[in-house]
Amino acid sequence: MYSASVTAPVNIATLKYWGKRDKTLNLPTNSSISVTLAQDDLRTLTTAAASESFEKDQLWLNGKLESLDTPRTQACLADLRKLREQVEQDENVPKLSKMKLHIVSENNFPTAAGLASSAAGFAALITAIAKLYELPEDMSELSKIARKGSGSACRSLFGGFVAWEMGELVNGEDSKAVEIASLEHWPTMKAVILVVSDDKKDTPSTTGMQSTVQTSDLFAHRITEVVPARFIEMKKAIIDKDFPKFAELTMKDSNSFHAVCLDSYPPIFYLNDTSKRIIKLVEGINKEEAIAAYTFDAGPNAVIYYDESNEDKVLGELYKHFGHVQGWKNSYKSETPINGVSRIIQTSIGPGPQVTKESLINEKGLPN
Amino acid sequence: MYSASVTAPVNIATLKYWGKRDKTLNLPTNSSISVTLAQDDLRTLTTAAASESFEKDQLWLNGKLESLDTPRTQACLADLRKLREQVEQDENVPKLSKMKLHIVSENNFPTAAGLASSAAGFAALITAIAKLYELPEDMSELSKIARKGSGSACRSLFGGFVAWEMGELVNGEDSKAVEIASLEHWPTMKAVILVVSDDKKDTPSTTGMQSTVQTSDLFAHRITEVVPARFIEMKKAIIDKDFPKFAELTMKDSNSFHAVCLDSYPPIFYLNDTSKRIIKLVEGINKEEAIAAYTFDAGPNAVIYYDESNEDKVLGELYKHFGHVQGWKNSYKSETPINGVSRIIQTSIGPGPQVTKESLINEKGLPN
Repeated sequence: MYSASVTAPVNIATLKYWGKRDKTLNLPTNSSISVTLAQDDLRTLTTAAASESFEKDQLWLNGKLESLDTPRTQACLADLRKLREQVEQDENVPKLSKMKLHIVSENNFPTAAGLASSAAGFAALITAIAKLYELPEDMSELSKIARKGSGSACRSLFGGFVAWEMGELVNGEDSKAVEIASLEHWPTMKAVILVVSDDKKDTPSTTGMQSTVQTSDLFAHRITEVVPARFIEMKKAIIDKDFPKFAELTMKDSNSFHAVCLDSYPPIFYLNDTSKRIIKLVEGINKEEAIAAYTFDAGPNAVIYYDESNEDKVLGELYKHFGHVQGWKNSYKSETPINGVSRIIQTSIGPGPQVTKESLINEKGLPN
Repeated sequence: MYSASVTAPVNIATLKYWGKRDKTLNLPTNSSISVTLAQDDLRTLTTAAASESFEKDQLWLNGKLESLDTPRTQACLADLRKLREQVEQDENVPKLSKMKLHIVSENNFPTAAGLASSAAGFAALITAIAKLYELPEDMSELSKIARKGSGSACRSLFGGFVAWEMGELVNGEDSKAVEIASLEHWPTMKAVILVVSDDKKDTPSTTGMQSTVQTSDLFAHRITEVVPARFIEMKKAIIDKDFPKFAELTMKDSNSFHAVCLDSYPPIFYLNDTSKRIIKLVEGINKEEAIAAYTFDAGPNAVIYYDESNEDKVLGELYKHFGHVQGWKNSYKSETPINGVSRIIQTSIGPGPQVTKESLINEKGLPN
């Protein structure tokens, strides 16, 4: 039995991915930018194993057997096996591409946290198998495979600040993730996640995107005019470590994304009254200068970026409303939501996927 | 003492006015369309009187002395006096333009209803003085004066379905209201207003518009591409009495308007969680065919248009959530909000300003 284990991070977009130009290949209608979060707080650990004794490809996700028979996952596995075949042209290399795979994957955060884990999940899956297969391809190359699994997963193949360049080719070969700046460039970038309690079921993002692309009259303008200009500006703000500019662009793009959701027909709402209260709170914090930047994905949870130098100001104000100013912990979970917020996760910028010796598969090829 | 009394209606835009290209003249960045509501339920009654014995221009609004010294009101009064002077070129005509005015104005609905009354107010002011002055100008001509008082007031000078043509002249002489179709064209058009309780103070619309014009990246596309096409389509839907099309365009334009509010920086929110629940409810009612059309102005209140033929279906569903299905009244006011709705006003399409013998001014020239 051969095996390899990798951890992969969550990333939160500051310039949003919303809209596919090709559903099968997960090709986006616009380029996007994200910050990779630290894996201490949020990560997926995946062990991939290959053995001639395995009868079929199998996946255990958070302790449960899950199907690998989705077109997306199958596309990823096929791509990886094809790359492995090239490695196996050297006859001394074992024929792992012909063996079945056992994959075990676990998140270090509860699903109940309400955080999308598909990006970290596909990033860990692809990089664990790539490691197992000893593929020579670099992360940008592998990001194209992760992209086919879940669009935003491609950005989790790098640490720090990451761009997903939309590309223009029909086959998607130029739609890949690249590093804008490493974790070391701006290591004081922090993030706090406010998990907002919500009783309604949100529109799944794939469905939502398609609806926006097809029905929003403002969407075309967003992708052809607004985002391309913002993409260049945001890269510059990151390279210049210009927090106020980075914050303004991040907040504007979150608003723009939710605006085209609302302009969809029927309209899609991800922000609720608690989300709006958080926005007002950040506006208050930013009264003199933008020291905090909110962003919201396809749900009511807020992610707020700030520089470590402003931690007391930013967190002080947030905890005043959503927790106890004294005694907050790294991952504060209140039993009952305080003002609509049920969990606060303090985290920071982090690195890309990491190889680890921790294995989730025992010698029998099954989950530990 | 000379006097005249007029009642003027409220109008609710189905294609929204949002953005001024000239703040002083109230010239809009786009044309808009509205439905005039019945005056039984919502109207302003204004009596205007002129007398040589009056010492200064005075206004009593809902029983309180109010200032006439705002640039907007002064612009309206100056325009009306100038037109009166032309009438007075006939020497037999009394010189009312030289006399001071006493104006008394009352709404038949409480301010607490949360409904903007400035449109009806300025429409009644302008038409009452025009009647007092026996001006020969038609309603479109007078609408230009009302527009200077409050943009959307110009649309309250007609009944039925009204367009405010934005015009293109710098002096605003072609920015006026015109009738698209009279009340008689589609007399079965009904409206129900759900007054939504809200603890926060909304951004005033004048401030909000300016912020959107200056900061929204999607706004330019709305006014140059989206609204002009929708304006033509909506006029056609009204002329064809095509309710499903009218409903679709009305809901899309409400969404588009709130989308550019959200795209403003900082973002402006008028819809709250109750507003969103109403939208979902209307989507449910419209499952098979669009028989109800929601629209929201600069606040969380919903106005829902429907054709009388679908009254039972539409109101049945709404009262199931927001009132008692049995025993509803024309103007149902619950003591405590039901699911966030504190008042329901059932009304219908209505006529333009009406001259009335009911006077609010006594023989001493003071409020009754």
